[in-house]
Amino acid sequence: MNPATAGFGSACRFALLALLALCAQARAQTDPLPSWNEGAAKQAIVRFVRDTTTQGSPQFVDPVARIATFDQDGTTWVEQPLYAQVMFAFHQVGVLAGKEPKLREIEPFRTILSGDPAQIAKLSLPELEKVLAETHTGMTVEVFQKSVQDWVTTAQHPRFHRLYTELVYQPMIEVMQYLRANGYKTYIVTGGGQDFVRVYSERVYGVPREQVVGSTSDTTFGYDADGKSQLTKVPQGVRVDDKSGKPVGIHLMIGRRPTAAFGNSSGDQEMLEYAQDGGGARLMMLVHHDDATREYAYGPDSKIGTFPDALMSEAKQRGWVVISMKNDWKRIFAWEP
Amino acid sequence: MNPATAGFGSACRFALLALLALCAQARAQTDPLPSWNEGAAKQAIVRFVRDTTTQGSPQFVDPVARIATFDQDGTTWVEQPLYAQVMFAFHQVGVLAGKEPKLREIEPFRTILSGDPAQIAKLSLPELEKVLAETHTGMTVEVFQKSVQDWVTTAQHPRFHRLYTELVYQPMIEVMQYLRANGYKTYIVTGGGQDFVRVYSERVYGVPREQVVGSTSDTTFGYDADGKSQLTKVPQGVRVDDKSGKPVGIHLMIGRRPTAAFGNSSGDQEMLEYAQDGGGARLMMLVHHDDATREYAYGPDSKIGTFPDALMSEAKQRGWVVISMKNDWKRIFAWEP
Repeated sequence: MNPATAGFGSACRFALLALLALCAQARAQTDPLPSWNEGAAKQAIVRFVRDTTTQGSPQFVDPVARIATFDQDGTTWVEQPLYAQVMFAFHQVGVLAGKEPKLREIEPFRTILSGDPAQIAKLSLPELEKVLAETHTGMTVEVFQKSVQDWVTTAQHPRFHRLYTELVYQPMIEVMQYLRANGYKTYIVTGGGQDFVRVYSERVYGVPREQVVGSTSDTTFGYDADGKSQLTKVPQGVRVDDKSGKPVGIHLMIGRRPTAAFGNSSGDQEMLEYAQDGGGARLMMLVHHDDATREYAYGPDSKIGTFPDALMSEAKQRGWVVISMKNDWKRIFAWEP
Repeated sequence: MNPATAGFGSACRFALLALLALCAQARAQTDPLPSWNEGAAKQAIVRFVRDTTTQGSPQFVDPVARIATFDQDGTTWVEQPLYAQVMFAFHQVGVLAGKEPKLREIEPFRTILSGDPAQIAKLSLPELEKVLAETHTGMTVEVFQKSVQDWVTTAQHPRFHRLYTELVYQPMIEVMQYLRANGYKTYIVTGGGQDFVRVYSERVYGVPREQVVGSTSDTTFGYDADGKSQLTKVPQGVRVDDKSGKPVGIHLMIGRRPTAAFGNSSGDQEMLEYAQDGGGARLMMLVHHDDATREYAYGPDSKIGTFPDALMSEAKQRGWVVISMKNDWKRIFAWEP
């Protein structure tokens, strides 16, 4: 680069930075979290962002290390009465049975096709794994993505009668946007399928595919009949991104401890510990489902989104912030009046 | 957001975009690839960037899909006479033997400690795997990172007598910067260890840790004596990110086919195929080592960086661009006079 163009480049950089600072100032004057009630939870988020992004602050975090991880089911969208991905799997059993009618005679597919919740609830873990393998593997990644896209743009939630993607929590969307506006990279770190969530993560959360960490199984490389290279999803090499699998997935996919981590259940405990034990300014938050009117209230004995008393104790002891949906969230969904 | 601040936000956005466009124009007038000689290879890069980033171009690529993947050894830095990471592993055997003198009596460590290249070359694959396991697992990820950091900031290349990180190819650094300036995310996709490359990728390539895709083994979650959570590297679950492992790794870590892919050997063949078969504008390039004076010249029978005649034929047939180090690169290293 010759000195003249280097000078022009510097001038550009200076003008851009000055304008960015001005715009940031303008933005700071508006409330970045309008769906949050004033309170300890909202304050904790605002204070964390200020402390970690203000130059000269003792808790300043280098922009490359600004990583925020969000669990999905129960943290960024509704997980009751069943995980969306399980609903997708059950739906796919119907699609498969349309093509291979023999499936209607074989368990556990017959039970799922019966639609009887009591019988379905009795299915064993190996039976459910068989359903997941049948509906999630044996096709190219593109064919799988298409099936998720078809489902997620049409399937409705049984209580709210809306698309699942309309059941994301507006307050959490605001936290993600606020963090990104302050130089954070936001990740979904979910027990759900990585390839499943990637289909809508960009559109729904503003999180690009490469920032989704989830459960995976292997893919195998090969060629189609026309000699085009392709990857096929296979049921081997399953990695479950839950509990201790979350820090493992975070290291695999990101390579550093999160500065902020958000969850809602025992499945997120290790992720929050792993974030906090990196030291320095860290923000750990747990969504507590205590609003049966607007969403759901589930106690320590819930099968989905388990939040036992021991987790509440650990949160208190470690200084994690527990979000009360009922008290901290002014509205839960974007479409609320 | 109230209408007044929304208006201010739009004004900011407009001013920023206008300034960005002006700066981009200024930059476009300088040569983005000063270490490249004029020729087909340089032209291919410039044309690809223009075609995929010009609004309204039939080959325009959505910014979220602008993914460029770079092999490391032999593509972005020197791989002869031995991969840097193998040199690191051999060095670590010495470090370990200092702590556990018994290792000096046990094969294959004894042979490695002898330093005799002829004997070392005779080691079998299982013996080399034993060395890799011993030097790359059994410690926390932080302890491993520290050992790589110590080595990479001190170890010198036997011919050039410089740090390995000084042996990166300046022309490829310029390609990475040029792509990033045009909205591409740049990734290292290497047969080398993911945790190894992550230690210096940000500093040397401007590629953050989360954009390094490499060979991995499992980590296990646990707690240290003080109850702090930690991850320990273990030798199970090895995934080799080479040949068909590269598309697999790309899908796992990124989730979409690269728009541009750069390699230098048979190990990169499947990655380039996978990029190209995504359709539309794609750029596939192979570095050909034909410059024994400034770097190395290795023929189709080389053990490292294998570039057999079949790969050259496939490159011709598929329209991949072969980069001649000798003819296309004005300079290879940043420190050349």
